[in-house]
Amino acid sequence: MSRRASSDAETAQGGFGNGVAGSVDAVLAEFLADQVRKSARPQVGLFAGWLRECLVGGKRLRPVLCWCGWVAAGAHGDPAGVVRVAASLELFHAFALIQDDVMDGSDTRRGRPAMHRQIARLHAGHPAAQRLGEHVAILLGDLAFGWSYELLHTAGLDPDRAAAAWSLLNAMRTETLAGQYLDLVATGRGHVDLDTALRVARAKTAVYTVEYPLRVGAALGDADQNLHRAFTAYGVPLGEAFQLRDDLLGVFGDPARTGKPILDDLRSGKPTALLAIAHDRADSAQCTRLGDLVGHLGLDEDGAAEVRSIFTATGAHTTVEHMITQRCRQAAVALDSAPLHTEAAAFLRSLITHATSRDR
Amino acid sequence: MSRRASSDAETAQGGFGNGVAGSVDAVLAEFLADQVRKSARPQVGLFAGWLRECLVGGKRLRPVLCWCGWVAAGAHGDPAGVVRVAASLELFHAFALIQDDVMDGSDTRRGRPAMHRQIARLHAGHPAAQRLGEHVAILLGDLAFGWSYELLHTAGLDPDRAAAAWSLLNAMRTETLAGQYLDLVATGRGHVDLDTALRVARAKTAVYTVEYPLRVGAALGDADQNLHRAFTAYGVPLGEAFQLRDDLLGVFGDPARTGKPILDDLRSGKPTALLAIAHDRADSAQCTRLGDLVGHLGLDEDGAAEVRSIFTATGAHTTVEHMITQRCRQAAVALDSAPLHTEAAAFLRSLITHATSRDR
Repeated sequence: MSRRASSDAETAQGGFGNGVAGSVDAVLAEFLADQVRKSARPQVGLFAGWLRECLVGGKRLRPVLCWCGWVAAGAHGDPAGVVRVAASLELFHAFALIQDDVMDGSDTRRGRPAMHRQIARLHAGHPAAQRLGEHVAILLGDLAFGWSYELLHTAGLDPDRAAAAWSLLNAMRTETLAGQYLDLVATGRGHVDLDTALRVARAKTAVYTVEYPLRVGAALGDADQNLHRAFTAYGVPLGEAFQLRDDLLGVFGDPARTGKPILDDLRSGKPTALLAIAHDRADSAQCTRLGDLVGHLGLDEDGAAEVRSIFTATGAHTTVEHMITQRCRQAAVALDSAPLHTEAAAFLRSLITHATSRDR
Repeated sequence: MSRRASSDAETAQGGFGNGVAGSVDAVLAEFLADQVRKSARPQVGLFAGWLRECLVGGKRLRPVLCWCGWVAAGAHGDPAGVVRVAASLELFHAFALIQDDVMDGSDTRRGRPAMHRQIARLHAGHPAAQRLGEHVAILLGDLAFGWSYELLHTAGLDPDRAAAAWSLLNAMRTETLAGQYLDLVATGRGHVDLDTALRVARAKTAVYTVEYPLRVGAALGDADQNLHRAFTAYGVPLGEAFQLRDDLLGVFGDPARTGKPILDDLRSGKPTALLAIAHDRADSAQCTRLGDLVGHLGLDEDGAAEVRSIFTATGAHTTVEHMITQRCRQAAVALDSAPLHTEAAAFLRSLITHATSRDR
């Protein structure tokens, strides 16, 4: 579950992605309107409204990658079905973000109050408004999760393609939840090792951000195993690179551009590679200061500046930049030998540039 | 989301239900083992183990009703597919119970620590073990929810029957989540009106406990609209009767038999019909006492005894018994005119007796 969707997804707005993102948005709007029409319960209107709000500002990276995978596989079959599956990935993403924000205790998302905070505000008169906001947001996430499946059922896919896509989506969901579990367990501990940090990044984000959306699209286009292997070889390192970039932006980035307050990751003690490397290399004074500062809700801007200086002094910052470059290179090599349509290849190459870029 | 599954479901263990419950358990065991085999992540083994634990003690009421609906419709098609769909209802139920317990802050379920408490205990060394337990339980619920869909996809249903079942399951899920929202918003307020209490009971429990499991089974057996209408006419009042009985057991029942501590509903201020009626009829002294006692975490056994005496003195207890009888009568009338197979009819009649019975 990626923590900073607005930043890692801006690239989906390239020439390739624009049309798809628009079609996906149209499907989502029509689907939500239809849910409200079908149900006799006014609560469904409320939920649909909140979900519309959640979807604002996302750049539809996963749907565009799904479309890209389908194009790369030769674009066999009905495009409308592919757009519906692509849209379902966006609802899955909304589910992940909404519940993730509750679990992380995040105040904001994409520069606005996180959904659980917005709901708590609506119920300001309730004796336990904050907890109510969290629980209703969990329900909203559940609904987005369920609706993401409903979009799939009604995509009118041919049974063999549907079965292939389902199988990937099932694996993606289980991986993502396992990754979120790893993240929760490792968050807020005094120390995290690099191996754990990378496992979290891989399971929680890499899988459902790049690799699986591409492969689901590929499955819908009857791709052979070579293309699936190429997408794994490209998607796994690139997904990790996105997460590592996210980790850096969460500490060194500009909140006005990322939409996330700069202190969240440090306050909660997120098990990032950045933190793991800094811990490994810190001398005993730095180690004590990291322990005093990271993972404490009271961390202020001065404390964060001190943590940043330790991340820089230990070389952790530079090392993570190097790890990103390395992973982007791996992804590029995978692309070079992949059997890809020119337009798809160009789009996938532009994503690598985006992950490498420090300017977001 | 029914709060006391062990009590409302004991009847599923009749002669009719025994074989189905066994087949459902076998499907669930094989499905969970398969998930563990398929995944490279040890966390999946952990999750599957917790889910196995959650499933212990449930009596498979919803799966048995699904089977019953299919039998009533003439039992067309492959029984193995029906058992798989039936099993998926049990995983949906597990999802609802696990997340419901988190949101209600329940300590126990079926006489054992609630899942979020068990998980918190496993992570006793974590700096925020209780919150971690809640969040991991939410993830476990999500996984059960997702896996309930995976069971459906792999049920090998013929496309028309699958589409009919999906459509009902989609509606069931949305209704249940809307009901849970109503419940959360109304819980812990000083006052609840009867209309709200009954809407909560209907949306949150009635729908997914009796009506929809029967209708999903019916759809798998190509039932005509008459049978669907009969199941609605039977299932809605009976589902409400179950919830009203549950509400009474939550205040007057024997915790050793219900598996739920007697104080939970009163402490959290659940919006039950019982409480709504008592409020309506209370004189000003009783009203003040209800306000002092209900919805407060500090409520003790003496306080609960006082609340019980107000529920009795205002006649709320008797009125709710009367409402249960009335609804059971409606369900019986619906059965009398339903086009049903003898065995199915006998089973559905036994369920009515169970809801009417005060001795659980």
